[in-house]
Formats: sequence, structure tokens, C-alpha cells
Amino acid sequence: MNKKLKIVGICGSLRKESLNRKALNASKKFFPEDVAFEIVEIGDMPFFNQDLELTLPESVVKFREKIQSADGILFAMPEYNYSVSAVLKNAIEWGSRPYGKAVMNGKPVAIMGVSTGMLGTGRAQYHLRQICVQVNMYPLNKPEVMIPLGLDKFDKDGNLTDIHSKEKIEKLVGALIVWIRKFL
Amino acid sequence: MNKKLKIVGICGSLRKESLNRKALNASKKFFPEDVAFEIVEIGDMPFFNQDLELTLPESVVKFREKIQSADGILFAMPEYNYSVSAVLKNAIEWGSRPYGKAVMNGKPVAIMGVSTGMLGTGRAQYHLRQICVQVNMYPLNKPEVMIPLGLDKFDKDGNLTDIHSKEKIEKLVGALIVWIRKFL
Amino acid sequence: MNKKLKIVGICGSLRKESLNRKALNASKKFFPEDVAFEIVEIGDMPFFNQDLELTLPESVVKFREKIQSADGILFAMPEYNYSVSAVLKNAIEWGSRPYGKAVMNGKPVAIMGVSTGMLGTGRAQYHLRQICVQVNMYPLNKPEVMIPLGLDKFDKDGNLTDIHSKEKIEKLVGALIVWIRKFL
Amino acid sequence: MNKKLKIVGICGSLRKESLNRKALNASKKFFPEDVAFEIVEIGDMPFFNQDLELTLPESVVKFREKIQSADGILFAMPEYNYSVSAVLKNAIEWGSRPYGKAVMNGKPVAIMGVSTGMLGTGRAQYHLRQICVQVNMYPLNKPEVMIPLGLDKFDKDGNLTDIHSKEKIEKLVGALIVWIRKFL
Repeated sequence: MNKKLKIVGICGSLRKESLNRKALNASKKFFPEDVAFEIVEIGDMPFFNQDLELTLPESVVKFREKIQSADGILFAMPEYNYSVSAVLKNAIEWGSRPYGKAVMNGKPVAIMGVSTGMLGTGRAQYHLRQICVQVNMYPLNKPEVMIPLGLDKFDKDGNLTDIHSKEKIEKLVGALIVWIRKFL
Repeated sequence: MNKKLKIVGICGSLRKESLNRKALNASKKFFPEDVAFEIVEIGDMPFFNQDLELTLPESVVKFREKIQSADGILFAMPEYNYSVSAVLKNAIEWGSRPYGKAVMNGKPVAIMGVSTGMLGTGRAQYHLRQICVQVNMYPLNKPEVMIPLGLDKFDKDGNLTDIHSKEKIEKLVGALIVWIRKFL
Repeated sequence: MNKKLKIVGICGSLRKESLNRKALNASKKFFPEDVAFEIVEIGDMPFFNQDLELTLPESVVKFREKIQSADGILFAMPEYNYSVSAVLKNAIEWGSRPYGKAVMNGKPVAIMGVSTGMLGTGRAQYHLRQICVQVNMYPLNKPEVMIPLGLDKFDKDGNLTDIHSKEKIEKLVGALIVWIRKFL
Repeated sequence: MNKKLKIVGICGSLRKESLNRKALNASKKFFPEDVAFEIVEIGDMPFFNQDLELTLPESVVKFREKIQSADGILFAMPEYNYSVSAVLKNAIEWGSRPYGKAVMNGKPVAIMGVSTGMLGTGRAQYHLRQICVQVNMYPLNKPEVMIPLGLDKFDKDGNLTDIHSKEKIEKLVGALIVWIRKFL
């Protein structure tokens, strides 16, 4: 019998009506029963500052505990200025420090993104992949889930309605679970 | 007679003993009299959040005014996780929004970085350059100032003492001024 | 009166029915009379090899002369494997060597791309932009011309028929000319 | 008992005295007896051209067969113009095409580089990592082997003599073998 997995989701946007948050919510139903999935909040941590490392802020401690206990991470990320949003980058900074105590180290991860631009957060995703090399996180290559808007992909209650996007997210979740088991 | 220029410096690290802050301080003496140089603080802005755009926080308004009035920007940036630090990325997010009101748009910029790693912030600098494409900032190609540590390059009072690094910063400042005048 | 400009076009695909070649052909009519535009071929040069630098191959010499005499370059590039095509990269290697004799050094350039994928060569274009930093070429930030296919954008004779794409190319050519004049 | 592995080495430089070739040669002694290691040549293939896909050139067929039969790849790459060399990029283009018949698909890989510049081919290696996403090759995160020159790291017969570099290559080879076994 397989070990029960724990996967955390991180949303790179703080906006209340964030489409990435909605996409992350839409992913929930694709996790099988033997996987616990939880969305972890990142907006209440201060900016990373090496001077704060000696006594980690409470919000940082909590965030780090959740990451530490997870077997893998699912990122849902917007693209800001062709790169990773500051708030998501900040979470990674705290998750990868202090030196020698990185809680993200070695985690398998999956990446998806929704954006209003043509490239569907692609440019930001490749920056995140370079960041993963330093942090030693292992991102899945495929599927790459980049959801450009243009047509209405969400209904008025914030539910993802686009069938093609839902299928891609379902595949990503399935692939992440197989990927994580390689690293156990 | 040349127009008097205004250049702002932005340091991408909040650490009190930040080497990038010290390098930025070291650059001050290379600005000629007809250039006003001011370091602008970025650590007191909240994370960018589209919901805050309607009523910009006071710290953001002040930051934006300083950028708006500048003819060019000198970035001194650390490298965190092979990319731009969250706090610097956040400043750029606020400087490039709301849509249609970007204050960084069209600015010529110069980039330098000090790091404890071998690559001297190189990886982060190329991410910043991609960000510049979206923001429509024009970075100088040369000189690329990447200062890897290893030998003691600063004295105990935080003064940059390494002659080679000082020369590179002097060249960068000179090149930035010529570069800015192309865009006036 | 303005100096008459010379701009060269380089196509990053060797395929006979290359869409980038067709887009480059479509750009011709947007150059005003005081600009000479010529497409330079790159497929007959050998792979760059430092051992060949002492006696440059004839094809390389010819290519370098054309670049040397140009005031700017218009790249039309496909995306292969999320990066620059080998044949285009090879042309840049020859254009930037031998050390101290780079003919591409200092040239202002503009970039466009047509692809069959969703991102319209975006990923390759950002790699080319990083290459430009080393070569010291100055790429325009805007407009970014990324033409994803999907709908028929060319007629059966290879003419670009998509009005939106034609407008973007026209804007790019116009912006390149203004950009080049900044560097004269 | 473990399956006997086959790993191919690819050198991204054609120069006769290529330092990357020498580093690849230096790696040979770190492969254990149950791993067959062979360096595959890439300099005799024509530039990738979709028109040639219908009847693949003989050199391409041979290259593809060697890649197909390998369990993993070790790249030794120079950095040209802050990116992957054309000749290496070309090999990847042929290895990833025709569509649906990619022989590089799914291969675990390791990356190392020797350069005369400060960053030790780092910039080129991150471009290769982005290329790996498209090709669906899985690069090891660590160790990152970037060997900047400056001191004499090779003796006059071309043997790598620098102990620190040799240790890094030994670790990379060991990690690659473990990595490959995850994917069997």
C-alpha cells in the first residue's frame, strides 16, 4: 500500500479574486483520497531579510513547518513583469533559508499559471524553474500548464469552467503524484 | 549646457550590513556635480496586490514620485535563489503599475551586484534584464558589474576598498550618464 | 537631411517555406526610401570553431562584411526547443568573433518571430536578448512581435495576410529606424 | 543486480584543444564497471532543417541511434555569447525531432562546463536547462559543475589536474548514475 502523501498548494497572487487561487481551488477535486492537499498562505510574511534569520518571525515559522511536512508542492503563479511575483519569490526565500536549514530542499514540484496575457505566465514559469535549481526543488517537465485568458474560462462564482484547462490541471496533479513517489 | 540630471539608486537588500548598499554608497563619489543622486528606500511598501491599486498606499505613492522624477536608475542587487530578491521585485511591480501609469516606463538603467557566490549576482541580473523588457526600461549592456566576494573587498567600516571593483563602478556610472542623455 | 540607413534582415530558419522568411519578406514594404534593406543568408557557414578563426572561411567573411556595413539588424526567428535555432546562433557566433573584431558589436536590433506554438517564439526571443548583452547589441524593447499561428495568417503564395501581424511588423520597422538614429 | 547502464557524453565545442573535451575525458575514470560511457560526436551533422526530416542524413541517423540506446547523457559545454553553442544546440534539435520521434525524450542528464570567463558557463547552462523542459530531459540540479579558468587547471598534455574540479566531476558522475536509476 502506498504511503499517504501530503501536497501543499501555493498561490503567487494576493488579489482576492485571483484567477490562480481559483485554479488552485479547481485542482482540489483531482487529488485522490490517499493525498492530503492544503493551500498554504504566504501573504503575511515580512520581506526576507538576513537580519531576521536569527529569530524567525512567527508567520515564517508556520509557513516553514507546513512546507517541511509536505512531500511536494503545487505552484499556481501569476506573471508580473515577465517574472515571478514578489510575494511568491519571498515565500521561496524564506523556504530556502537559513543556509543549511532549507525546508524546500529536495521537494518535487509542479507548476501552473493563469494570466491575462498571451503567454499564460510562461516567462515567469521559466524563471521559477531556474530558481528551483538553486533551491534544489525538482519541477515536472510536463505537462506545462499555462492558461492564457481571452475567452471566459471562469464562471461568475469563480469556478473554472474551461474543459481544456481542467483537463490539463487534472493531468498535472496526476503527474505530480507519480513524480513525488519517485522521490520517496 | 547639459540639463542637470537626477538619478536614483535602488538597493535590492534590506540587510543592515548589505554589501550592495555599501557598493551603492561607494558609487556616490563618481557622480559629477551636474547629477543629483539619491538612494530611494523600498522596504516599507506592502506586497503588490491589484486590490490596493485603487488607493495606493502612502509608501508606494512616495516611491513612485521619486522614480517618476528621475532620469535614470542605478540598481545594486543581491542574488537570492538565482533570481531577483523579492523586495526589489516588489518595488518594480509598484513602479510599473497601475496599467498605463507606470513610472518606470522608458527609464534608462544600469545594473550592478555584489554577492557571496561565484557568479556575482549574474543569474539575478539576467532575470532583471528580462523584467526590463516588460517594464520598458533600457539597461546598459556594458560594463556588467558583478562583484563576487572571496577576498575582502570592504574594510571594517563598510567602505569598498577593492580597486578593481571601484573602477568598474566608476565606469558604470559614467556610462549610465552618457546613456541617459541619449534618451532625453 | 538624414543619413541613408542600411538594415540587414536575418532569418533564423533554413526551411524553404519558412514562415519567418515570409514575415521578413512582408516587412520589406515598410522600409522608407531612405533605408536600404537586405536579407543576409546564414545557412552556408560552417559551425563556429575557434580553430577556424585564423583563416576565416569565405562564407563567414562575406557574412561579416554585410553585418559590418549595416546600421542595424532585424531578426526573424523561429523557436526551436524553447531557444534560438542553431543556425541563427551560429551566425551570431561568427558575427561576434574573433575577440576584438566583432562586427555585431554596438548594433541596434529588432526582433520578431513566427511560430506554430502558443508562445509565438517568446522563449527564444528572451534567450536572444541575453545573447545581445554579451554581443553588445541593443534590442528594442517594444513592440515585441510574437506571431503564434493557429489561424491562417499567410495565403497560399506565402504572403502574410493577417492585418494585425502586418501592423505589428510595420510598427517594429518604424521603431527600429528611430532606434538606430539614436545610435548614429 | 543492477542493469548495466549506458551513458553518452556530448561535448559542445569543436575546437581541437577544447577544454570541455578534456573535462569529458577526465570524467571517464569515474564511471564504474557496470556503466558503459561513450563520447558521441556531433560536428558532422548539417544544420537542422525541417525539409531534411523526411530523409534524415546518415550522420543524423547515427547520432540518433546512439542517443536512443543511452540511459542518460553527460553534457560538457562551453558558453558562447552567454548561451549554448550552435553545434550543441543543433545536436539537440536533431535529437528532439521529428515530432513524435524524439530520441532525447525522457532522458536524465547531467551538465558541466569549462570556460575562460568568470561565470564558468553558468549562463549557457541555464539556457540548456530551459531547453531540457521542451525536450523532456531531466537535468540533475546538483552538483552544478562550472569550471572557470584563470589558474592553470590542465597540464600540457591536456589532463585536468585541478583537484577541486576533479572532485566535482566525480560527484556529478556519481549523482548522474543514481539519478538515472530513478528513471529506469
